[in-house]
Amino acid sequence: MSQPELPLVLIGFGNVARRFLRLLDESAERLDFTWRVVGLSTRHHGSVIDTAGIDVARAIALVESNQSLDRLESEPRERSGIDVIRQVTDAMADEASDGRLVCVETTVLDIDRGEPAVSHVRAALEGQAHVITANKGPAAFAYHELEALAESVDRIFFFEGAVMDGVPVFNLVRETMPAIAIDGFRGVINSTCNFILSELERGKEFDVALAEMQARGIAEADPSLDVDGWDAAAKTAALVNVLMGSAMTPHHVVRSGIRDVTGLDVRDAIARNRRIRLVASASRQGGKVRARVEPEVLERSDPLANLEDVENALYLNTDLLGQVGIVQRTGSLTQTAYALLSDLARISQRLRDI
Amino acid sequence: MSQPELPLVLIGFGNVARRFLRLLDESAERLDFTWRVVGLSTRHHGSVIDTAGIDVARAIALVESNQSLDRLESEPRERSGIDVIRQVTDAMADEASDGRLVCVETTVLDIDRGEPAVSHVRAALEGQAHVITANKGPAAFAYHELEALAESVDRIFFFEGAVMDGVPVFNLVRETMPAIAIDGFRGVINSTCNFILSELERGKEFDVALAEMQARGIAEADPSLDVDGWDAAAKTAALVNVLMGSAMTPHHVVRSGIRDVTGLDVRDAIARNRRIRLVASASRQGGKVRARVEPEVLERSDPLANLEDVENALYLNTDLLGQVGIVQRTGSLTQTAYALLSDLARISQRLRDI
Repeated sequence: MSQPELPLVLIGFGNVARRFLRLLDESAERLDFTWRVVGLSTRHHGSVIDTAGIDVARAIALVESNQSLDRLESEPRERSGIDVIRQVTDAMADEASDGRLVCVETTVLDIDRGEPAVSHVRAALEGQAHVITANKGPAAFAYHELEALAESVDRIFFFEGAVMDGVPVFNLVRETMPAIAIDGFRGVINSTCNFILSELERGKEFDVALAEMQARGIAEADPSLDVDGWDAAAKTAALVNVLMGSAMTPHHVVRSGIRDVTGLDVRDAIARNRRIRLVASASRQGGKVRARVEPEVLERSDPLANLEDVENALYLNTDLLGQVGIVQRTGSLTQTAYALLSDLARISQRLRDI
Repeated sequence: MSQPELPLVLIGFGNVARRFLRLLDESAERLDFTWRVVGLSTRHHGSVIDTAGIDVARAIALVESNQSLDRLESEPRERSGIDVIRQVTDAMADEASDGRLVCVETTVLDIDRGEPAVSHVRAALEGQAHVITANKGPAAFAYHELEALAESVDRIFFFEGAVMDGVPVFNLVRETMPAIAIDGFRGVINSTCNFILSELERGKEFDVALAEMQARGIAEADPSLDVDGWDAAAKTAALVNVLMGSAMTPHHVVRSGIRDVTGLDVRDAIARNRRIRLVASASRQGGKVRARVEPEVLERSDPLANLEDVENALYLNTDLLGQVGIVQRTGSLTQTAYALLSDLARISQRLRDI
């Protein structure tokens, strides 16, 4: 079969989105699809729509030199992310109706309501576009509504990058564990907190460790999202919604961050052959799912105790396979971008299977 | 779409195959396919073919009370596994040609040449049946030939159960890591050896620990396959063949088992804050893949060092995701049976996608 061509509209054009486009180029020979970018929406650098295909290299160069994408259009106009999605799905109604149009959502996490990401996903699905996102918001705040919408229009709504970057978590369960029930999970899923705890153990200062994570582009711009446990809570809510069939938001997760954990605390734990790690967990209790994010003092034999620096791991409690763990040992922008690539490859796969 | 009905022919009818059939029954409501068993071949209890569907409960009862399956046929005759495959693929040529007939291969591992399992897989594919197997032999001895044959007849040849039971390894890479290259791996993938080493650490005797693994149905009938590293070598060869694109057999794996590891050795390692584990590994060296199975003295910080008893783990070195680990914390017959179920579910998925 010939390779499908997927038109992409990107809502959010930050580091992750730009790395994603470069990764597609680097991986082109290994992919069974081609693509062109037909819409770009940025927060501070305007937007551009061109159904014939945007000059991506030029768009990246403009944004990275702090110039506006308006230069790529003859008659530039102001548009919101929603505007870009609606105009592209209208202009490319044929491709949308063929199931080839894909919206790539990478705006930043809003921990109050998951907006405008949730609205972006909804608008794209309503326009018959598939949606892939690295944003935790949609799955954390509105998974069941959006998944029902996606099914009703026979489109894909994937978000592998929401937890542990491109290391498969949602795809792991969906694609490789048929007929399995998940009763709970435990994990270390915030790299910034794990790095800070590791540095505290080595005698470094909290703020210095946090600054290093920000410099490496791993910490969120607003450090409260990491150190107060919000990022882990959003991931936990997404995991509960998707894997355990329950419905919660990050605000339902019992949450305590690492802001009050001191070097004294972590070194005292080590002296007792233990380690403090920020653990995200969920379990069913009397038919209801309870979820928590909090620092735990772990025995050395706990598989979460030996995660260093930016390592992540998630252990799923399953009915047929017992406890299954997936471990991420390195984290970088490429891994987050790869999450989008792996989601896009599944859309292509589905098109080829039809 | 309506649920496909998959006729199954089972070659090998031991613990794994019988648990697989019970697991299908237990999971029936969660599966998107139905099935009927049309052929059974055993090593010591005869065989039976009935394209209308065999009474599975009665077949299980006969074998478990040490009686022959011949009783289920009006005119029983002696047949090899190959005979059963050929007669079923002939009698069910329509179902085979529709891509619905599935051969479930669960004979025991032959470490010399992987036979007769390799011939079973070949005969089934030649008859246009899909093949799923929990036997390591076919992927360890003849993966490239059999996969090419499967592709040429547009059928599936899956063997998730060959490594780490039903915990996804091959499906993990195939289904969730598109466009990724694997440069090597390290793992603890033989439960019996890991259990023996754990027991030696606790001061137990080697032979007592081995006997317990045999009693629990985890050790191979021939203990040499486990303690001399052959089982791990077969798994390593399968991993190299499938994930690294190279071609080797278990005999190409540099191999050293745990027969000479003493209680003194493992307790001496613990005294130095280290642990001895049987490690399987492979890496590319100058364009060639080198693979080893041998006891290694590991630092406590090594993610393989903390695997207890029958826990397994495999860490893959990937180009785009760095090191990714998958961990199995419990092992049982159900998990091996689940491997077959997950492979069968993918065949059904493919039929539904067409």
